Amino acid sequence: MEQLQRLPGVGPKTAQRLALHILKRPEAEVEALAQALIEAKKQIGLCSVCFHLSAEPVCEICRNANRDDKTICVVADPRDVIALEKTREYKGKYHVLGGVISPIDGIGPEQLTIQALVRRVSQQQPQEVIMAISPSVEGETTTLYLGQLLKPFTKVTRIAFGLPVGGDLEYADEVTLARALEGRRELD
Amino acid sequence: MEQLQRLPGVGPKTAQRLALHILKRPEAEVEALAQALIEAKKQIGLCSVCFHLSAEPVCEICRNANRDDKTICVVADPRDVIALEKTREYKGKYHVLGGVISPIDGIGPEQLTIQALVRRVSQQQPQEVIMAISPSVEGETTTLYLGQLLKPFTKVTRIAFGLPVGGDLEYADEVTLARALEGRRELD
Repeated sequence: MEQLQRLPGVGPKTAQRLALHILKRPEAEVEALAQALIEAKKQIGLCSVCFHLSAEPVCEICRNANRDDKTICVVADPRDVIALEKTREYKGKYHVLGGVISPIDGIGPEQLTIQALVRRVSQQQPQEVIMAISPSVEGETTTLYLGQLLKPFTKVTRIAFGLPVGGDLEYADEVTLARALEGRRELD
Repeated sequence: MEQLQRLPGVGPKTAQRLALHILKRPEAEVEALAQALIEAKKQIGLCSVCFHLSAEPVCEICRNANRDDKTICVVADPRDVIALEKTREYKGKYHVLGGVISPIDGIGPEQLTIQALVRRVSQQQPQEVIMAISPSVEGETTTLYLGQLLKPFTKVTRIAFGLPVGGDLEYADEVTLARALEGRRELD
């Protein structure tokens, strides 16, 4: 139970429920779970190009010749790659920072994969780098910081902020509405 | 209780609670409430220019000389005006359609204030008309329909769709993420 409680979202009650469940299962099933955890940890590392999770030295997206080399989408976390892949709209490559700049948590540019990104952009000369970082204070700082670093090499864009699709004007918060107004585009 | 139940969001239980509360209050208080309802209904009509709620023939926003005459923001409903005013970002005028085009509900362009809008735009020649309609299927139809009608007279823009501010990439639905990517802008 002590070990299980270290997992995110698992408190004392859930830990107890999980532990009691495990005690009820056959030994083979428990061993299969334990083995899967060890295997996953052993086999999954980070892609040496984009730092997304990968079982190979270079991940599937980076190896895929059908994906556009000329666009790099910069995200904070591997789960953002997964979210963007689900849209099936993006055909370029990624770069996973491994977090956002957050001085309070002791995370500066050196703790992230920023140096590797700058090297990659300066060498590959992509046509566009898209910043797709959640708009928290730390996320904004990271986006603007990277924008300054990368602009000498390429065009740097950022994803749009505004009304979520299916959202109602009335229920949008004021900052989102203000951004939606500010970011308005000509109708075509 | 029967009458109270006709209010939006008031079911049998709430109606009973409200009715019992009213019975407990002094008569003067109950009369003040009843009077306020009648007065509101009597005095509040629609602005003859923009169709926002107004106690005067022309509403406060339309009469305000400090507001920019050259921009008209088109919304579905008076509550959208209230939401946009809360942002304190918008300094132009409004036009309230009174709904969106919805053939299923029998609402066509004639049921809305569209004719008045076209007349207003063709006469006043504003520099920009901003469509600020929630992105439902009906809302989209209305935005595109009005865009076609108004483009001969002025520039027509629409508010941005994308990630809500403070929202997390991971929790955005796929359509919103796709729109956020599509609507990306160059970092300045």
